[in-house]
Amino acid sequence: MDSRTGLPVVGMVGGGQLARMTHQAAIALGQSLRVLAQSPQDGAALVAADVVIGEHSSYEDVLAFAQGCDVLTFDHEHVPNEVVRALADAGHAVFPGADALVHAQDKAVMRAALAKSGVPGPNWAPVSTVEDAVAFGREHGWPVVLKLARGGYDGRGVWTLSESEAAQHILDPAKSYIVEERVPIKRELAALVARSPFGQAAAWPIVQTVQQDGICVEVIAPAPDLSEGLAGEGARLAVQLADEVGVVGVLAVELFETADGLLVNELAMRPHNSGHWTIEGARTSQFEQHLRAVLDYPLGATTMTAPWVVMVNLLGGPDGGMGIDERVHNAMAAWPDVKLHLYGKAPRPGRKIGHVTALGTDLAEVRARAAAAAAYLSQGGHP
Amino acid sequence: MDSRTGLPVVGMVGGGQLARMTHQAAIALGQSLRVLAQSPQDGAALVAADVVIGEHSSYEDVLAFAQGCDVLTFDHEHVPNEVVRALADAGHAVFPGADALVHAQDKAVMRAALAKSGVPGPNWAPVSTVEDAVAFGREHGWPVVLKLARGGYDGRGVWTLSESEAAQHILDPAKSYIVEERVPIKRELAALVARSPFGQAAAWPIVQTVQQDGICVEVIAPAPDLSEGLAGEGARLAVQLADEVGVVGVLAVELFETADGLLVNELAMRPHNSGHWTIEGARTSQFEQHLRAVLDYPLGATTMTAPWVVMVNLLGGPDGGMGIDERVHNAMAAWPDVKLHLYGKAPRPGRKIGHVTALGTDLAEVRARAAAAAAYLSQGGHP
Repeated sequence: MDSRTGLPVVGMVGGGQLARMTHQAAIALGQSLRVLAQSPQDGAALVAADVVIGEHSSYEDVLAFAQGCDVLTFDHEHVPNEVVRALADAGHAVFPGADALVHAQDKAVMRAALAKSGVPGPNWAPVSTVEDAVAFGREHGWPVVLKLARGGYDGRGVWTLSESEAAQHILDPAKSYIVEERVPIKRELAALVARSPFGQAAAWPIVQTVQQDGICVEVIAPAPDLSEGLAGEGARLAVQLADEVGVVGVLAVELFETADGLLVNELAMRPHNSGHWTIEGARTSQFEQHLRAVLDYPLGATTMTAPWVVMVNLLGGPDGGMGIDERVHNAMAAWPDVKLHLYGKAPRPGRKIGHVTALGTDLAEVRARAAAAAAYLSQGGHP
Repeated sequence: MDSRTGLPVVGMVGGGQLARMTHQAAIALGQSLRVLAQSPQDGAALVAADVVIGEHSSYEDVLAFAQGCDVLTFDHEHVPNEVVRALADAGHAVFPGADALVHAQDKAVMRAALAKSGVPGPNWAPVSTVEDAVAFGREHGWPVVLKLARGGYDGRGVWTLSESEAAQHILDPAKSYIVEERVPIKRELAALVARSPFGQAAAWPIVQTVQQDGICVEVIAPAPDLSEGLAGEGARLAVQLADEVGVVGVLAVELFETADGLLVNELAMRPHNSGHWTIEGARTSQFEQHLRAVLDYPLGATTMTAPWVVMVNLLGGPDGGMGIDERVHNAMAAWPDVKLHLYGKAPRPGRKIGHVTALGTDLAEVRARAAAAAAYLSQGGHP
């Protein structure tokens, strides 16, 4: 408890944009997020009052950070599972816990758990050699998708390989991999839920996520033309997974929609890019909900605030010779009802430096408006 | 400019809840509000990264604070007007400027300016003696409303007096006062607008404000059953005033609705309690808009996000033996769609410690929901 306010202190390990936006939500709840950042330049460190600089991979750093926190949680999956476990063993409330979090840290563990639960996913196998991958491809068809079991994100650590490419691919013997069949998909979706220690769960509507080069660029809420059956199945599947795995906090389930139904692609156990639209688009944002969940507060309403909500990421790129301040100025003039979120990050090509959200009643118009504002803000010119 | 982000630095003098909520808005714009607080316990100081402790009445403190800020603005009216003027003379961008701000600092100046502009207000006179007040009452009728010209707020420095009370009232010869006729009013309204240095102005819908003991307790947006004529007149009047007085930032015009139309009661030149509903209830909140205005960014859309939005203040009081954390927990369970805003302030009787906002389509239901949640959070029990 913060003796100044009588309210709990949540510590978030990691100082990126997820912590930054969680701090915004914490302010409304009367709290101030405690942030373990790698650098004073991290997005959350630029805006939060209570920042500790340290290494998320160091047990000593995280343990010291945990002192005075009522609950510890994460803005990424990179805290070693044994550190998470040791913190809980030392008496700290850590959500999600080590047994849950490993499913978002290790794709082999995740795939095995899903198979055991009967949750649909692509055919897969753990592999440690090129020969294993080739054998899998010969059995299930080409191309295959080779993935680092641990540490990949935003398309890194993922390779789509033909037979000849697979045969030449070099596997690091120090790392573990899985290989998956490449499923023909209609599109990608995401199911976002939150679960509290009490066991309360709340789901937002299923969204469509649009990827480019393995990076999410656009999220449409709700997923257009999704059958009621699949919408229900997606939400049920996410709540079931959260419960079986014992997730506390937000769980994002990345899904493939195929001709045969939904398949699980990935899991994340934290506020997720597919849920940024909830800041303006749902009565309770994923950031507030994550705080409620890890504090075992009752969860908030997940109803949408508009018929259609579209989020588009701002990716660093050529800036048309315009500084960010000038681009913001011009974009505000052109799109007075598009909501801007900047993360305090220096632009680098392909880096997520912010996002925009548009809301409305005409999906095509909302998508076009969000895309135009995002293109201008990212590149300093119209698309 | 913040060299880390390429974005401007706004400094806000005053560290209360208005600065706290402005910091939340600044985060989305990629900024981090710089706050001059009186104490590290101030609501904004608890949550902002860039806090300076100092006295808002000290030219030296405010001048030191201004170094490195692109724009200075205020979370209250208590910075001496000569300090505001001296800052501008020293080359700092200060919004609102001294010539505008004096109208929110001195009721005699405000009343004289309104009279000159032909903006309707009650009959009034500057007074410095009891005899002046009694003479005014004998001319305009009893009771009269005696006000400190400077420094009053939330019902303090305001006295409604009969002839015998006025005759006995003790006026401090070191202070200046005005006396106003007590106008028979139907209700109180507020017109909220923002204006940029460029001269762009944007108005939110006129709201009804409900007062108890001189403190605003509830705000209803839009004002129910307000004629189109009066709604238009209120917005025009606020935009006209902002322009004539040269306001930059948010201007709140507190209005009386009378049988004869609208009268101006008070002015405030900052985000205002009557605009807290805009956080969830309008596409652009008053806090984001104030930042846009003082930075001369184009203003955001002021459209409402729901047909009815009701804000109720949380006032400190008897807490039913429940700590704030327990009250929050229970209120979240009972009202999952009411939005909570806590200011990090220790409860004292009558002190504003936060607010709640409810949105919906049925005004009576929305008011009841907001009132019930606020009563529970304030007092730990149902009303």
